Amino acid sequence: MSARPDVPPDDASGDPSCWFNPFEDRLREECGVFGVFGADDAAVLTALGLHALQHRGQEACGITTYDGARFHNERHLGLVGDNFAGPDVPQRLPGHAAIGHNRYSTQGAPVLRNVQPLFADLSAGGMSIAHNGNLTNSRILREQLVEAGAIFQSTSDTEVIIQLVARSRSGKIVDRFIDALRQIEGAYALVSLTNKKLIGARDPLGIRPLVLGQLGKAWILASETCALTMIGAKFVRDVKPGEVVIITEAGVESIMYAPERRPRPCIFEYVYFARPDSIVDGKPVYQVRKSMGRILAEECPAQADVVVPVPDSGVPAALGFAEASHTPFEHGIIRNHYVGRTFIQPTQTIRDIGVRMKHSANRAQIEGKRVVLIDDSIVRGTTSRKIVQMMREAGATEVHFRSASPMIKWPDYYGIDTPVRDKLIAATHTLEEIRAELGCDSLGFLSVDGLYRAMGENGRNDDAAQFTDHCFTGDYPTGLADSNRQLADKDQQLSFLVEVA
Amino acid sequence: MSARPDVPPDDASGDPSCWFNPFEDRLREECGVFGVFGADDAAVLTALGLHALQHRGQEACGITTYDGARFHNERHLGLVGDNFAGPDVPQRLPGHAAIGHNRYSTQGAPVLRNVQPLFADLSAGGMSIAHNGNLTNSRILREQLVEAGAIFQSTSDTEVIIQLVARSRSGKIVDRFIDALRQIEGAYALVSLTNKKLIGARDPLGIRPLVLGQLGKAWILASETCALTMIGAKFVRDVKPGEVVIITEAGVESIMYAPERRPRPCIFEYVYFARPDSIVDGKPVYQVRKSMGRILAEECPAQADVVVPVPDSGVPAALGFAEASHTPFEHGIIRNHYVGRTFIQPTQTIRDIGVRMKHSANRAQIEGKRVVLIDDSIVRGTTSRKIVQMMREAGATEVHFRSASPMIKWPDYYGIDTPVRDKLIAATHTLEEIRAELGCDSLGFLSVDGLYRAMGENGRNDDAAQFTDHCFTGDYPTGLADSNRQLADKDQQLSFLVEVA
Amino acid sequence: MSARPDVPPDDASGDPSCWFNPFEDRLREECGVFGVFGADDAAVLTALGLHALQHRGQEACGITTYDGARFHNERHLGLVGDNFAGPDVPQRLPGHAAIGHNRYSTQGAPVLRNVQPLFADLSAGGMSIAHNGNLTNSRILREQLVEAGAIFQSTSDTEVIIQLVARSRSGKIVDRFIDALRQIEGAYALVSLTNKKLIGARDPLGIRPLVLGQLGKAWILASETCALTMIGAKFVRDVKPGEVVIITEAGVESIMYAPERRPRPCIFEYVYFARPDSIVDGKPVYQVRKSMGRILAEECPAQADVVVPVPDSGVPAALGFAEASHTPFEHGIIRNHYVGRTFIQPTQTIRDIGVRMKHSANRAQIEGKRVVLIDDSIVRGTTSRKIVQMMREAGATEVHFRSASPMIKWPDYYGIDTPVRDKLIAATHTLEEIRAELGCDSLGFLSVDGLYRAMGENGRNDDAAQFTDHCFTGDYPTGLADSNRQLADKDQQLSFLVEVA
Amino acid sequence: MSARPDVPPDDASGDPSCWFNPFEDRLREECGVFGVFGADDAAVLTALGLHALQHRGQEACGITTYDGARFHNERHLGLVGDNFAGPDVPQRLPGHAAIGHNRYSTQGAPVLRNVQPLFADLSAGGMSIAHNGNLTNSRILREQLVEAGAIFQSTSDTEVIIQLVARSRSGKIVDRFIDALRQIEGAYALVSLTNKKLIGARDPLGIRPLVLGQLGKAWILASETCALTMIGAKFVRDVKPGEVVIITEAGVESIMYAPERRPRPCIFEYVYFARPDSIVDGKPVYQVRKSMGRILAEECPAQADVVVPVPDSGVPAALGFAEASHTPFEHGIIRNHYVGRTFIQPTQTIRDIGVRMKHSANRAQIEGKRVVLIDDSIVRGTTSRKIVQMMREAGATEVHFRSASPMIKWPDYYGIDTPVRDKLIAATHTLEEIRAELGCDSLGFLSVDGLYRAMGENGRNDDAAQFTDHCFTGDYPTGLADSNRQLADKDQQLSFLVEVA
Repeated sequence: MSARPDVPPDDASGDPSCWFNPFEDRLREECGVFGVFGADDAAVLTALGLHALQHRGQEACGITTYDGARFHNERHLGLVGDNFAGPDVPQRLPGHAAIGHNRYSTQGAPVLRNVQPLFADLSAGGMSIAHNGNLTNSRILREQLVEAGAIFQSTSDTEVIIQLVARSRSGKIVDRFIDALRQIEGAYALVSLTNKKLIGARDPLGIRPLVLGQLGKAWILASETCALTMIGAKFVRDVKPGEVVIITEAGVESIMYAPERRPRPCIFEYVYFARPDSIVDGKPVYQVRKSMGRILAEECPAQADVVVPVPDSGVPAALGFAEASHTPFEHGIIRNHYVGRTFIQPTQTIRDIGVRMKHSANRAQIEGKRVVLIDDSIVRGTTSRKIVQMMREAGATEVHFRSASPMIKWPDYYGIDTPVRDKLIAATHTLEEIRAELGCDSLGFLSVDGLYRAMGENGRNDDAAQFTDHCFTGDYPTGLADSNRQLADKDQQLSFLVEVA
Repeated sequence: MSARPDVPPDDASGDPSCWFNPFEDRLREECGVFGVFGADDAAVLTALGLHALQHRGQEACGITTYDGARFHNERHLGLVGDNFAGPDVPQRLPGHAAIGHNRYSTQGAPVLRNVQPLFADLSAGGMSIAHNGNLTNSRILREQLVEAGAIFQSTSDTEVIIQLVARSRSGKIVDRFIDALRQIEGAYALVSLTNKKLIGARDPLGIRPLVLGQLGKAWILASETCALTMIGAKFVRDVKPGEVVIITEAGVESIMYAPERRPRPCIFEYVYFARPDSIVDGKPVYQVRKSMGRILAEECPAQADVVVPVPDSGVPAALGFAEASHTPFEHGIIRNHYVGRTFIQPTQTIRDIGVRMKHSANRAQIEGKRVVLIDDSIVRGTTSRKIVQMMREAGATEVHFRSASPMIKWPDYYGIDTPVRDKLIAATHTLEEIRAELGCDSLGFLSVDGLYRAMGENGRNDDAAQFTDHCFTGDYPTGLADSNRQLADKDQQLSFLVEVA
Repeated sequence: MSARPDVPPDDASGDPSCWFNPFEDRLREECGVFGVFGADDAAVLTALGLHALQHRGQEACGITTYDGARFHNERHLGLVGDNFAGPDVPQRLPGHAAIGHNRYSTQGAPVLRNVQPLFADLSAGGMSIAHNGNLTNSRILREQLVEAGAIFQSTSDTEVIIQLVARSRSGKIVDRFIDALRQIEGAYALVSLTNKKLIGARDPLGIRPLVLGQLGKAWILASETCALTMIGAKFVRDVKPGEVVIITEAGVESIMYAPERRPRPCIFEYVYFARPDSIVDGKPVYQVRKSMGRILAEECPAQADVVVPVPDSGVPAALGFAEASHTPFEHGIIRNHYVGRTFIQPTQTIRDIGVRMKHSANRAQIEGKRVVLIDDSIVRGTTSRKIVQMMREAGATEVHFRSASPMIKWPDYYGIDTPVRDKLIAATHTLEEIRAELGCDSLGFLSVDGLYRAMGENGRNDDAAQFTDHCFTGDYPTGLADSNRQLADKDQQLSFLVEVA
Repeated sequence: MSARPDVPPDDASGDPSCWFNPFEDRLREECGVFGVFGADDAAVLTALGLHALQHRGQEACGITTYDGARFHNERHLGLVGDNFAGPDVPQRLPGHAAIGHNRYSTQGAPVLRNVQPLFADLSAGGMSIAHNGNLTNSRILREQLVEAGAIFQSTSDTEVIIQLVARSRSGKIVDRFIDALRQIEGAYALVSLTNKKLIGARDPLGIRPLVLGQLGKAWILASETCALTMIGAKFVRDVKPGEVVIITEAGVESIMYAPERRPRPCIFEYVYFARPDSIVDGKPVYQVRKSMGRILAEECPAQADVVVPVPDSGVPAALGFAEASHTPFEHGIIRNHYVGRTFIQPTQTIRDIGVRMKHSANRAQIEGKRVVLIDDSIVRGTTSRKIVQMMREAGATEVHFRSASPMIKWPDYYGIDTPVRDKLIAATHTLEEIRAELGCDSLGFLSVDGLYRAMGENGRNDDAAQFTDHCFTGDYPTGLADSNRQLADKDQQLSFLVEVA
């Protein structure tokens, strides 16, 4: 899901009073979902699964359970381990079935009403839902629903789905759910809990990932396999694009609710989002990243003394680059993992400290050396520039920057929080301009075909692209109903309410 | 409004582990509402007005403002003075129009989703609403709405009104509001804020009070006149039973939306709820209470040395009783005003301390004397029994108990939180049995006709009772659709969700 | 004890941005102490006792228990009922012996390090202490102690006592305690807990009260008898001026540690501080206050239609005045008991609302009448002026103000938080000037001799005054070592540390 | 400093109800100190420096500043970035001089009274102090001080120093400080702030590190150089063992207060504690760790397909091992950096999940391979065993475990929180027994001489060891007065007080 925050995160990111904003120059994570059916302490398993998926969202987390009679829901700002680690979790959230959600981090004060899982009392009973992804026609649907008398409790696009379910004239809850899915467009991995079922669904193109697992007699749904590993569950299979899986005491039922099409999973899961030990749609992420580094070394070689990753996401590609280029790999940048909230710069006395809050040059490995810096991608370029400068200050004689993914030129509308287009450095600058902006001696990006080769393809099939890769190519896989409209002022206001914490 | 709490307060009241439950033997307050249109710092005026109405509800409070572009809403558990007293209130809640709400106190952990004012984004714009009273057909309406696809965010009956407004096919917001009013039954004083209007409404019988005031150019709506006095506003008039007042920049418009009927304001406002300095439907509350005491002295005289009120609500009647009976008035019971939350009795080592948490005998005024105790009413009788005993322990030679209102024999369904019928001592006991239970030497209740005489009537007109007095008479003024149904298990569950704080 | 707050409360009181400061024109309460030895759940009894003494201090509260092996200490800002009412109190604070303390309310953010009881690990074992009163030579002693190497953890004068105990060269803990008492001057009621004893002490003149009670086999110490009543304990006797009582399993031992002198209890306990149902040094407070009102009616009669108390402290005197003057008594001012924290006035749009936060005119009892207002005392006069004005606005034809105590002309140094002298209206104005300032038609104060008559004396014995009454007479009963010194800047700084909450 | 926690952390660590205790099998960090003199926004620089030193302690943090007139002190539980990152830090903590402290993490609820910097009002003025290390005679000194009348406010050994300063009969504050240092034994790096000076001190053997830096005109003291790098300060020199540096507006003065001896810095700073980009006593930590790995590969080679570090501390040694053994390096274990508080295992349904909370096998890099696991050290062995098992479950055909430091056989008394001796697996097991316990195919430890070679020495000089290495050798560099005493029960109780949060 992608709740449009009341305070635009973009403004916060560019806020000059922010000394260090750990998210400024990152693609922000989307979300993680998890579900379990048929296990003792379902809430505890869900907390563990969400903990394994914490990299997908750190802003907020929530769990809904069903105890056979009533639903129980807890939603909090902050990390899973800070909210669902106590010994009383089974008492607070009783039941044998549960779903959970991690929400990504933003700067603006998030409002709890947008934190998932959402819940609704339907005439058929209670229904809770959690969503990773983003709908591209949710605002049009929302306006139609409000016109028809619906009252929204959140500004989240996820609520559109639940309102559509509530309005469906179909009889059974699964039919009503599929009714709703057929009206929405975009990217989604959904888990939903009713008083009899755990339901999972993946969008028709499989843009967002969702896997099915098993732990003893219990069934699991999760965004990534690393959540299965965490709880000791075995991987069963990926949920298919356009599939709804219905888990009951009788087992797993599958319904293909959308016409079959060639899947196009999001390639950014491999570039940046997924955890390196996850296996996404059959491919181990860590290995794919190493391959990106190897191919990058072929495409954009550099004469250097040391290969240095921008930690942590650049590490696998850097290992691949080092291997392929026979150049020593060193942790030439040390990452401070205790970075929490944004430090606010109270005065102008200290400049350029920002990047050091998170990254610190390991001078003994840099001084007097020609350095190849490897990062997974370049978004705005602001952090990259500071890291290049940090390398020079630490005594690097040359700094060669390599991005293990192609130039990011187009914004995302499927759940990745990209800056607006003119903040994407590669959308507005040539390669040489970017190099000058970054201040490095040479700059290289993995090619789109190189990226596809790292994925095990021979290259991109431009007639029928194998992956969702619009950030690099501009080739959006679905309609973009909401963003194609000229949104008047009124339209941009999803709610007239500013809620105070 | 009367949100049915997830944890039944009745059970909490009778919880034997509670040492002292300040609400156990009281009729709990309903709620207070306040609205202002056209004033600088509307939120500050609303906080002050709610502070003056704090006696009507201490559990929670909330304010919604409209700043010309957006609504701002804050809702908190606790007192107005603890939540809306800071210098930043105008920044937190900007605007020239505001509504606010106080909610009554209960024992069970209240859930914030039921705290008012509620808010909804309608197709016509935002709407916020606050409600004092209780609807008697809200559950039937709620089921119909859910069947039609409505999703409720609270278990409050107030949300039924807002859902009806959202569904109305009428064009203008006021027409939609009146559409909604015509479908609901019960008791209500409502204030509502839209992006152009402040709206007030009072139920067709005027069961709950609502007054209109003016402060400079600004218009005020409030449950009682004491809120006008607080902010220095002048009283304009009572809102009429069955009237909607619409306040805009053009002034006050009045619509009588219900067929004219003889009003029946709730007599319990005079007996217990309203603040003594308020003037309710033209009658000063303090004077009415003194009259009750005077007539009680005539109807149930007692030979005694001292008249002692159960503080604070028994004080005016005791002054009247003392005057009429020419017996000295003394504060023979001292009230501890610092009583906050319920003290929980951890062990059985100490018994009967409960009543002393709030009331303490002023032994020097009691010892060796014949005491007449005056209370406003007797509900369960549990506290009355303990106070009689306290008087005896303080050395009273005789204790005569007098209730300044008639026997309470019937539960309320209009916003007063009465115990179930078999917990009302007067519903199940004769006068002599109650006297024995209380352990007093004599006992007397004001008669129903006496009560009406204190109100300035010649007595009750049984053909067309002048007041809502069903607690004493069983004569309910409206239909009771919800409670007349045999509610099956499913029906009793307003939500399948147990929300964890 | 009187911790000198880091932020001078005087400034806060006069802060023009404060709309309503509930303490501005009051003498602030001192403190309350309580101790118990030999009871199950000593902490629970202490919490109840402190609840009964809450009127003596609402800023903070604390309890220390001893469980036979270790001491347990909890200190909180806020009310007893908000901090020590839970079922887990016996687990949190185990033991059969306990002491507790209530601290008075101020405006400035109080620092927890000054909240009592204080605790120290001495070579003889642990010692905890709680103090009502104020020492007049504590700063001189503190400087001597710091010079000798003592490190203070608070700015409270109470810590001077514990530091003196720690330094004493005597052997037994009681001897060391008495060593300390012999070095201090001023007013104090102390309770102290060691690993074997509960100790109580009262200053040589008995300025502050302390009583001994019994509950079964357990012994109780408390500031007032109302705390005994609360827990059902029986009153044994007042602790004598200059007496130390040592309570052990063997019973109560008494040591008169100071040369015998004529006691001079503080008369302000009767005028204002003590709860009306307490019996202080043998005299019932409520009756003394009624006598003050009766004698006031003789000394300063007024032709009026109604006697109206400034609630709550003016009520007993008003009842006495009404009785003696045969004038009807009415609650013509209604007090709002929900006043909590100071409301801050955000803008200048609303003036003079302050007094209405707490007091509201009961117009129906005032309009068209000649009113006698009775208050217990007049301090700054600011509130009195507003109340007079409120009476006029409510339609009073005449307003006669009467103070049930003499003119307050001198500040206190014994634990009552009086304003500096030039803020005391009676110190700087004549009777007629005060009347003009208050805006009333006539004004009268009880005479000093009248006050003594109300206490059962024939009048004040100027050669050997029977009570501590310096606020009225300037006759301070002890030396004032600290305040007689010309305090240089350095001296005024008790700590160089500004602690941030 | 090493505050002995009220709840023994050892018990908490072994608590079977703890599912995952992130500290169970680690040597816990000591503490970090930082000081600045002569800079605008000294508190902000201190917060940044502490952030860079966060790896030395995550339990609590505190800052004291001096603004020219008063000291300001804030101490909090939790991370620097969660407590000192706001824009109001300069207002909250004004001044041009500051000191700060990070405290290590424990399981038991820490008490705020032990959080540093401590502060005392001395006769000479205020003094604040922060301490990394542990005194070995603090309890003997503490008893002597209490006997002499000192009252301790904490159970921290750091307070002993400040009490000694308070008692010193010397005149100037620096002389009094040196008086105190000459009485204490053990390990310490101290920073202290007075109203004129910033003072630093390092113990006579230089066991704990302390560096001096400069930022413009301002002087800096810090535990490690990485804190200088963070704020852009330049490294000036290490503070010498037995040196006191006194920083005033006149510059830096140095006093060697202890007889010159051969320094013996703690070798564990290189093995585990210091940040890899720090340079400790002239040696870059990352390079030393790589050397340990290289020498380990020589001493304990293994036939394997892949070298896998236990992240993050094992990474540099693993890189060295991989280089020296020409075996591929892979991140075969993925670390979850979001681990916060201990997850509590509510039921026994799930076993062995613990280690996965923090570490997860990267199966694609492990399956079918012979794995060499490299960790910095082995303490209890419990985590090592689980990681070996995790490798096997991920499909490793062989698992060879290598520790990049020697066997840990002796507890520390200088600020490292080691388990008691019989919990150290190498203290009670032979190499083969440990291998069996860990379940690995082969096991090797770096030799003591190998460790010294990695430090650039030819080997250990047993007559005059170059480093403090008692954990490996049992050769304690100082007396152990406290631990050599047979501590009776009474002695073990540092305070009789159990403070409740």
